[in-house]
Amino acid sequence: MGARRGRGTVAVEVLGTGDEILRGDSRDSNFARIASRLTAAGFEVAGGRVVGDDLGALVDALRAAAGRARAVIVTGGLGPTPDDLTRDAAAAAAGRRLAVHGPSLRRIRALWRLRGLPMPGGNARQAEVPRGARVIPNPLGSAPGFSLRLGGATAFCLPGPPREMEPMLERSVLPALRRLAPSRPPARTLHASCCGLPESAVAERIADLMARDRAVRVGTTASEGVVTVSVHGAGDAAREAPRVHREVLRRLGAECYAPERVPPGENLVRLLLARGLTAATAESCTAGLAAARMADLPGSSGAFLGGVVAYHDRVKTAALGVPRALLEAHGAVSAPVAEAMARGARRRTGADLAVAITGIAGPGGARPGKPVGLVWFAVASAAGVVSVRRRFGGGRALVRSAAANAALDLLRRTVEGREVR
Amino acid sequence: MGARRGRGTVAVEVLGTGDEILRGDSRDSNFARIASRLTAAGFEVAGGRVVGDDLGALVDALRAAAGRARAVIVTGGLGPTPDDLTRDAAAAAAGRRLAVHGPSLRRIRALWRLRGLPMPGGNARQAEVPRGARVIPNPLGSAPGFSLRLGGATAFCLPGPPREMEPMLERSVLPALRRLAPSRPPARTLHASCCGLPESAVAERIADLMARDRAVRVGTTASEGVVTVSVHGAGDAAREAPRVHREVLRRLGAECYAPERVPPGENLVRLLLARGLTAATAESCTAGLAAARMADLPGSSGAFLGGVVAYHDRVKTAALGVPRALLEAHGAVSAPVAEAMARGARRRTGADLAVAITGIAGPGGARPGKPVGLVWFAVASAAGVVSVRRRFGGGRALVRSAAANAALDLLRRTVEGREVR
Repeated sequence: MGARRGRGTVAVEVLGTGDEILRGDSRDSNFARIASRLTAAGFEVAGGRVVGDDLGALVDALRAAAGRARAVIVTGGLGPTPDDLTRDAAAAAAGRRLAVHGPSLRRIRALWRLRGLPMPGGNARQAEVPRGARVIPNPLGSAPGFSLRLGGATAFCLPGPPREMEPMLERSVLPALRRLAPSRPPARTLHASCCGLPESAVAERIADLMARDRAVRVGTTASEGVVTVSVHGAGDAAREAPRVHREVLRRLGAECYAPERVPPGENLVRLLLARGLTAATAESCTAGLAAARMADLPGSSGAFLGGVVAYHDRVKTAALGVPRALLEAHGAVSAPVAEAMARGARRRTGADLAVAITGIAGPGGARPGKPVGLVWFAVASAAGVVSVRRRFGGGRALVRSAAANAALDLLRRTVEGREVR
Repeated sequence: MGARRGRGTVAVEVLGTGDEILRGDSRDSNFARIASRLTAAGFEVAGGRVVGDDLGALVDALRAAAGRARAVIVTGGLGPTPDDLTRDAAAAAAGRRLAVHGPSLRRIRALWRLRGLPMPGGNARQAEVPRGARVIPNPLGSAPGFSLRLGGATAFCLPGPPREMEPMLERSVLPALRRLAPSRPPARTLHASCCGLPESAVAERIADLMARDRAVRVGTTASEGVVTVSVHGAGDAAREAPRVHREVLRRLGAECYAPERVPPGENLVRLLLARGLTAATAESCTAGLAAARMADLPGSSGAFLGGVVAYHDRVKTAALGVPRALLEAHGAVSAPVAEAMARGARRRTGADLAVAITGIAGPGGARPGKPVGLVWFAVASAAGVVSVRRRFGGGRALVRSAAANAALDLLRRTVEGREVR
């Protein structure tokens, strides 16, 4: 496959490990992260495999992957427990023994001293690497990674936790892959992020650009109310990608909140900081999700002041000043209550803007005329209060997450002076 | 691997397809669904593989999987477009030709008539299956699935969309697998959930139970401050699993918050509901995460009232009544401020219990004696206020998420009358 498609590219196999993944107890989120990053950098992911915590299966999978690709990236199995077998498997596949890497052992001991805890015996194993392997530093965890030759391929073994794996991929593995193929063909991936339209409506606007026979590949993915459009060109098509990307942005107009792949909360906070504005939240069914997403970005305290989680009606009255009569007359999921919540949050925090969210996340709680998934939003600003209703599907978790994203997008539309709808 | 572990079990390989997965544009959520369902039904998932829309790679992967396992489940590549190649690959791997399945073709034509649209030419391909294959009906989509013999294994080819794949797995594939192994041995998986100990400390307490040569397999996974222990027994070991599980619970003691796999927020809300108690939150660095997790459970409004997201100090004073002098004297990340926040949230919501979280999520914001990752917590109840400090590592997102879970666990310890630490 690498040979057929990837003239000049470096084909990479990705190997995930763990009984918990094979049993469906936990998801391997590393594959998608690695695949996306490698593709954007112009490498070709030839395939992925997941095996359990089984020495024989790991050795077989390592050898098979090394036979198919120029590079193999392994994640997981570098922890301190007996079911962490990647070190042993890599050593066996390469016909080498394990040896303690002194600097790593000293670093692990120092980390435990910092925590003020005695180091459990098993943790010393994390400093072992196959002889002849090159250690890959792990700035955010105790287990170092390593790379070693495996037949005609190079294997890179990284820890499983994504927050440890990602900086190691970025700082060590990608530079090493670039050295493997200094003259690889160019590739360019661009994105656009939308909120407020279903994926099929986004796809309809750019259907001709998404045709399979185009040199520049355009695709959409949807998650929790956010639709991300990707524009990918490899080889000769890399130069064409920016032109197609501009056309995608033109077609999406105000529905596109960013000409890149960025969560709505992070995008909103950057926008608020750039305009010198502050915002607050008043949340019922989302219960803090919108607030938490505004605080995802470091430095967000310059724009995000805080808010109230008014889950129970008593808190809507006590902490936001929503009149009890309004709750009784219209119900908590209504335009007047959403508007009173937004006004209350703005007044009590002193923020320039406040958004309110009140809805029926389900599965219970539906009333005549108020189905599960119905959410009322309001945005309060110096100009007054605007409210909108939306209906979300897909179950409680999805309704809440999509509603939080929609609220952030309503604030964005307000700041940009666009119609709030 | 199947042979080593699975005496008498049916080892299954799972194969996902699609260029969009290899590029990281979309995630293969089918693997985790299939793995979880098969494990619960007593089958053993021996491994998973993802390959692109490439005939040669698909044929190779099918043959390799059929050589390793008794059954292979393939998802994706049954659509109408030229990059849907699973039919061709299965036929090639089995040395057969494709043939039109009449009833499927008539059904596909009828579906297009129902939509009132002319059927695009490519869609007739969806009615083709390898000669000798058994058609698997697809009640929710147009592409039928099929099963066929591949060497010593049976391959089941299903469409990629999870909502089509899942009922076919349930109604057709699982019954067929049960027929492959009518006397397959039982399997049992039990869990325990902990918060407050690092994974290696949990593993140390149960190190002997985690030894690789034990019939009952005990493993740990850690995520955002929560360590989940799994206890899995297959065959003769299935009957032993509950005894090992009880021993795990005994060793973990108060660190174990539930004898099952359940998020700390959901567990806490069930506990509060059972005791008839209510709770509230006051969050700075976590900015609503702890509140949002308490509202994850439907019906949580019976126990969770709401809270305040006091991200900016101005909101700590205005909405929680934290004296400005206290903030100036001790800084926002301090025991006195955490305690005042918890008291303020309890008073203003009228809840029985309130938890406060104030910390330095990073990467900026560290001060002398107050490093990134330092978090102060306080729990206010009728008995008074208790505060504790903790230090988390791993970057902003992990500090915040682990701190939210730790806060929920402090409330749990308070309700259970355990030491808050």
